[in-house]
Amino acid sequence: MSGPGRFISFEGIDGSGKSTQARRLAAHLEGLGHSVVLTREPGGSPGAEDIRALVLEGEPDRWSPETELLLFTAARRDHLERTIRPALEAGQIVICDRFADSTRMYQGLRRAGLRVLVDQLHDLMIGQEPDLTVLIDMDPETGLARALSRNGGEERFESFGNDLQAKMRAGFLDLAAEFPDRFVTIDGARAMDDVTADVTARVTEWLA
Amino acid sequence: MSGPGRFISFEGIDGSGKSTQARRLAAHLEGLGHSVVLTREPGGSPGAEDIRALVLEGEPDRWSPETELLLFTAARRDHLERTIRPALEAGQIVICDRFADSTRMYQGLRRAGLRVLVDQLHDLMIGQEPDLTVLIDMDPETGLARALSRNGGEERFESFGNDLQAKMRAGFLDLAAEFPDRFVTIDGARAMDDVTADVTARVTEWLA
Repeated sequence: MSGPGRFISFEGIDGSGKSTQARRLAAHLEGLGHSVVLTREPGGSPGAEDIRALVLEGEPDRWSPETELLLFTAARRDHLERTIRPALEAGQIVICDRFADSTRMYQGLRRAGLRVLVDQLHDLMIGQEPDLTVLIDMDPETGLARALSRNGGEERFESFGNDLQAKMRAGFLDLAAEFPDRFVTIDGARAMDDVTADVTARVTEWLA
Repeated sequence: MSGPGRFISFEGIDGSGKSTQARRLAAHLEGLGHSVVLTREPGGSPGAEDIRALVLEGEPDRWSPETELLLFTAARRDHLERTIRPALEAGQIVICDRFADSTRMYQGLRRAGLRVLVDQLHDLMIGQEPDLTVLIDMDPETGLARALSRNGGEERFESFGNDLQAKMRAGFLDLAAEFPDRFVTIDGARAMDDVTADVTARVTEWLA
């Protein structure tokens, strides 16, 4: 932890509903009187949003995996310094839609062996983990149908087929097994309100 | 070395004339029949130029030293993959106006201890040194007068006073002492043509 606050991240495949659940949890905790900062990656600070735009615009092969990894790490460093750490030091609850686990999972799928580099770069330049990571788990068919029904402008995270979505789901579940102390896995293939009730209960219990 | 080509970098304080000398050396070697790629940092490939613009535009404190270091490293990785290594593999001579030594020197001056991080990140994500580095050495008064007489659009590298220029000169000379096998130090405080003759002679001798 950096400071007296709490740092909660949400992870999950596209269409899993994690962004909605992050928003709802933020509103719920604010309703209980907590001071909450809701943020997201890539992005989350003015500089990081500019880097996000640079990475996500243009052709998918514009950047090599290593260059993209450096750019995402630059964005994360800015986000951490300018948004997350100041909030934690002020005692706030930070809820972040995606954090380093998304990078571990995505870059790890891009090329065998890249995960080692991801970890080394993270240790060298970031060195911060969430206190709690809520994984909204869902089968890819359901997630993809939800993702395609939206009108997302950033196609790169949405343009994957079912095979890749299945690998991503497996990648997140592997991370949950790798970091059992901070991961909470929630079944996301239910009615949104049921998922919200589950998330709320688990986080409230953890906070207490 | 990557491939059968040769990789020559030019370093020096602002106003030292290194860019002019790099251009003149490229023209001279092309006149001798060599295939030469003249490039520069930050930048040197389309992606790296976009990152350069992102780093150099805006307020000087827009990025922390660590975020700026990550962005410059992302630019360097792209430049290396897309411009420098393909040229070296094709047997060309790459002449680069600034490379990693500029980062070592500038970031090292920004905060004590940052040089260690610069080296760790370089080893992890770049791992390439020039075969030869030509340092155009010059006293800061002369260099600053030359720099101010130009109309450079990028003020960030030009807005330093004499004290900082003196530290930069000392930083480059320290690097020349640290890497004696690849550094050649040239006295830049002479008539341009005399400096060019010296650079040409030293590089021609090294190439042979």
